[in-house]
Amino acid sequence: MFIGVDIGGTNVKMGIVSKMGRILASTSFKTNIPRSPENLIDEIVVNINNLLTKSNLTLKDVEGVGFGVPGLIDTKNGIIIKAGNLNWEKVDFVKLFKNKMNLPVKMENDANCALLGESRFGGAREYNNAILITLGTGIGSGIMLDGKLLSGNGCNSECGHMVIQVNGEQCACGQRGCWERYASSSALTRRTIEAAKQNPDSKLNDIIKKWNGKVSAITTFNAAKMGDAVAKQLVDDYINYISTGLISLAWIFHPEVFVIGGGIAKEGANFIAPIQQKLDNFVKENNFYPSIAVKKTVLEDNLGIVGAASLMMG
Amino acid sequence: MFIGVDIGGTNVKMGIVSKMGRILASTSFKTNIPRSPENLIDEIVVNINNLLTKSNLTLKDVEGVGFGVPGLIDTKNGIIIKAGNLNWEKVDFVKLFKNKMNLPVKMENDANCALLGESRFGGAREYNNAILITLGTGIGSGIMLDGKLLSGNGCNSECGHMVIQVNGEQCACGQRGCWERYASSSALTRRTIEAAKQNPDSKLNDIIKKWNGKVSAITTFNAAKMGDAVAKQLVDDYINYISTGLISLAWIFHPEVFVIGGGIAKEGANFIAPIQQKLDNFVKENNFYPSIAVKKTVLEDNLGIVGAASLMMG
Repeated sequence: MFIGVDIGGTNVKMGIVSKMGRILASTSFKTNIPRSPENLIDEIVVNINNLLTKSNLTLKDVEGVGFGVPGLIDTKNGIIIKAGNLNWEKVDFVKLFKNKMNLPVKMENDANCALLGESRFGGAREYNNAILITLGTGIGSGIMLDGKLLSGNGCNSECGHMVIQVNGEQCACGQRGCWERYASSSALTRRTIEAAKQNPDSKLNDIIKKWNGKVSAITTFNAAKMGDAVAKQLVDDYINYISTGLISLAWIFHPEVFVIGGGIAKEGANFIAPIQQKLDNFVKENNFYPSIAVKKTVLEDNLGIVGAASLMMG
Repeated sequence: MFIGVDIGGTNVKMGIVSKMGRILASTSFKTNIPRSPENLIDEIVVNINNLLTKSNLTLKDVEGVGFGVPGLIDTKNGIIIKAGNLNWEKVDFVKLFKNKMNLPVKMENDANCALLGESRFGGAREYNNAILITLGTGIGSGIMLDGKLLSGNGCNSECGHMVIQVNGEQCACGQRGCWERYASSSALTRRTIEAAKQNPDSKLNDIIKKWNGKVSAITTFNAAKMGDAVAKQLVDDYINYISTGLISLAWIFHPEVFVIGGGIAKEGANFIAPIQQKLDNFVKENNFYPSIAVKKTVLEDNLGIVGAASLMMG
């Protein structure tokens, strides 16, 4: 048995995972930032013991614990270099955990974990060269080449900060024009709110009013489906922003597949098909490429836990 | 002894190289495009024999022949997938050469060769994680991680086609806004010619007239040094374009050093220092990075031959 722990900015999700990728028991609790790593680890340890008891297992049944963390990770040394959403910098996480629970442990960036999970149990199974991106508040990225996670200088990639617009929108990282300022799901939400304000007579604005101002990236896709021109333009631009970054990555890495995760990927065909179309055009225009598939993550809500557990599956 | 052959769009440069990276004998001839690979190989074979004779060596002294080719290379299978400047597609190059000369042979993208050369004998010797870019008609890129050349799906990277400006200038690849449309040395030349036309009273325009309309990227740097405001703006923008792409690559690969090649890198401190400054600011702003050095290639005119020969040095 393996334990997967997905530490997010809002929730910690964790579970016991079989070597076939099945979740036998799981739980979650609020991350409650700001919080010290030691304090969070204490709650994780309590929950590991609870999950084991609930499943009639003991520590001896655990082959290892994998942690997925949103941030820049020094995998080799088990150190969180920086995790902005957790407000942590230079945390000797693996060592802190081992002080509390003597089990084999690995930690990786959460998007890399997701890619491992999709690669072992999900939509990237047939591929040795795969890139996964998660569209959320920012853009997370995991890159697998020849079956191995890419690690530059011991660190994970952070493709969300590739610049796609010189002198473009200000990003929290200090740069301007980062990909995630245009292609994250929160970027689409932000653009949708702006566009609705500027177009008070649009169906988009009606929908937002009907939901008492609540907007998510899904709102825009729904309004576009209803034929609203403002929303359609937003969606077209959004697909273009996403595809632009993917094509940049294709020139660098020549992947066989892009796997896209995050709530918005649940839009399914509406969302994936036009991106696939852009990639197909690209491949055709540069006829030296094999085709590049575009897929959404298939492990869905289990991805975080199963991905983290996959770290320990060798 | 090793033989290095650098096939460029204009010239083929080749030489005999010692294991210490010294060129013992060299020659060059016009590539003369359009030309069949077989025909070019014939001329290369003649020249290899001539160089050996001239150096009192025989084929038995040759440990291998390395080829550097500007394009997308399938290194494993020795195939040129596409080399736009040579007008070649899907060329089984290594096999064709071996039909004529039975020696150990390897072929790589020319920027990857340059990085190998700089890594073994030049400015990247102390680094295991290095990225080299060459600024010419386009932008070539070589990426080394943990001492090994990056190979995605068996191919070299083509970072010159990362998009840095969504919906930007049209590129020959079919996309808009590619990095090389802004940061190659030919991009600077093109912008310089436009700016001089639009500012007929500028010192920049005077200089261009004095040289009978001949413009290179160096022209702009010279005019900027003389205090011309138009040229200064061009140089500032150019440095920004280059740095923007480098920083995108830093987020993805976390390199220890960027090595910059191409004629314009000979500008030296005028050129490298402001890029280093941009990278230093980036590192400071995201305080989790170690510093990233920026250097120009040091092998200069020998880089093509020595780099290609390095392919065979294990």
